[in-house]
Amino acid sequence: MEIIDGRKVSIDILNEIRSEVDLRIKNGKKVPHLAAILVGDDGPSQTYVNSKIKACEKVGFKSSLFKFESSISETSLVDEIKKINENKDIDGFIVQLPLPVKINQENILNKVNPNKDVDGFHPLNYGKMSLGLDTFLPATPAGIIELIKRYNVDTNGKKCLVIGRSQIVGRPISILLSQNNKFANATVTVAHSRSKNLNQLCLDSDIIISAIGIPEFLNSEMVKNNVIIIDVGISRIKDENSIKGYRIVGDVDFSSFKDKKGLITPVPGGVGPMTIAMLLKNTLRACKIMD
Amino acid sequence: MEIIDGRKVSIDILNEIRSEVDLRIKNGKKVPHLAAILVGDDGPSQTYVNSKIKACEKVGFKSSLFKFESSISETSLVDEIKKINENKDIDGFIVQLPLPVKINQENILNKVNPNKDVDGFHPLNYGKMSLGLDTFLPATPAGIIELIKRYNVDTNGKKCLVIGRSQIVGRPISILLSQNNKFANATVTVAHSRSKNLNQLCLDSDIIISAIGIPEFLNSEMVKNNVIIIDVGISRIKDENSIKGYRIVGDVDFSSFKDKKGLITPVPGGVGPMTIAMLLKNTLRACKIMD
Repeated sequence: MEIIDGRKVSIDILNEIRSEVDLRIKNGKKVPHLAAILVGDDGPSQTYVNSKIKACEKVGFKSSLFKFESSISETSLVDEIKKINENKDIDGFIVQLPLPVKINQENILNKVNPNKDVDGFHPLNYGKMSLGLDTFLPATPAGIIELIKRYNVDTNGKKCLVIGRSQIVGRPISILLSQNNKFANATVTVAHSRSKNLNQLCLDSDIIISAIGIPEFLNSEMVKNNVIIIDVGISRIKDENSIKGYRIVGDVDFSSFKDKKGLITPVPGGVGPMTIAMLLKNTLRACKIMD
Repeated sequence: MEIIDGRKVSIDILNEIRSEVDLRIKNGKKVPHLAAILVGDDGPSQTYVNSKIKACEKVGFKSSLFKFESSISETSLVDEIKKINENKDIDGFIVQLPLPVKINQENILNKVNPNKDVDGFHPLNYGKMSLGLDTFLPATPAGIIELIKRYNVDTNGKKCLVIGRSQIVGRPISILLSQNNKFANATVTVAHSRSKNLNQLCLDSDIIISAIGIPEFLNSEMVKNNVIIIDVGISRIKDENSIKGYRIVGDVDFSSFKDKKGLITPVPGGVGPMTIAMLLKNTLRACKIMD
């Protein structure tokens, strides 16, 4: 299989953003500013937020981290969001998910100013996305579309299987890829935990986007030749040969594909780095709206 | 084929609504009030609006028709919408589509108060629908779901083909049927004008929802036995035996199905009457929110 190099593309995008920021500074315009809200001390959440902040530094954005104890009340968190909504220096912000279970996630995401909603999770932006209107797209599906564009993948009329129906990946990418756009127009099927005969669905597909988080379940015998595979899964599996004791794998049994024809995103280095790049792109967009 | 009798089910629903309205009146509560905005003198639009108003009478709702010349400016139309948004007696209203081409439909639908948006076309409500949150569902897909419920159709894990990706039917029904709900959980594929090999897609499907408006294109040879067909198409075709000179047909070549096993909605008398019933249900809901 040929590799879709998400790491490389994401670096290209960061460089493009960096150039725009440099030009903005030269022209006396505002420097984009991304803020992140982190509640509690979930390990992976901390890691994700840190890499977003690090990426901000790379492109010359300002960034802020608002960290709260997991004991924070929903009302207090809403108050903090309102402050950020009103803070004119902050162009866009994200609420790192998941939130502690006692906090109503839906209520919190509803309180984000839609003009600063760079994650695209506010129902107003999600609705615009579903209607095909111009808005902030959730970062992971936006990253997938960007890979499709930059690798000039022909999706028109192709049978595309999306495995997983999550609000942040499966649902939005299934909608976006079946819309009437140049890098879309696919015949999209959404499979999920209740779907029967997943193997046959995979065999029938020209493009497979897997986002279920089952380590290495998709192997080369389940797909046809010249398939295009986008692997959104990120799982840790035990690996005694690794210093950390584990390694990161996707939904795809990558090694089984080496003699197959087609295109594939690796994990890590595929969709992951694209997600952060698209978040920064959304932040730049939010900043430009305010120009 | 067995018939899914949308006319009968819609009468049941109207009776249920009528009972609720009678009870509201008895309890001194507000009578639901639906308003419709009609711009220009498009024949079919006039017919649709009239049947909505007639249905209001049947269930004891108040109704209002706001009729404007096709020459009305976008600004004036927005002003009229604002007045209706603020009119406390009106619980819900619809803007009959299509609008004259010089008016930006997206802008108009955005101005409807989401709490009175009984068509479910405001991006905020469309987003909630896409996210699986409780909200006004667009009437036609809501009517299809209601038929599935009342005929106790098992959709779980079934292969469902939605033909058409319109914002008012194809897109929302494809989202709703693949969500994690009792009368959903289907493996949904969306086909459209760019899809290849529609015949094979049809043959592979347990449930077919057709909403493309090509008269009688779907015949019994294109589907498997025991298929469930929901026909959303409404087209006029010439018929010299009819007094009107035409008759109404759906996307399905109905007569070809008489010896086939399965379930099917007729046209007329299938999805059509359900659409109006669900609009009234949404209006009752809007009224209750204000209680």
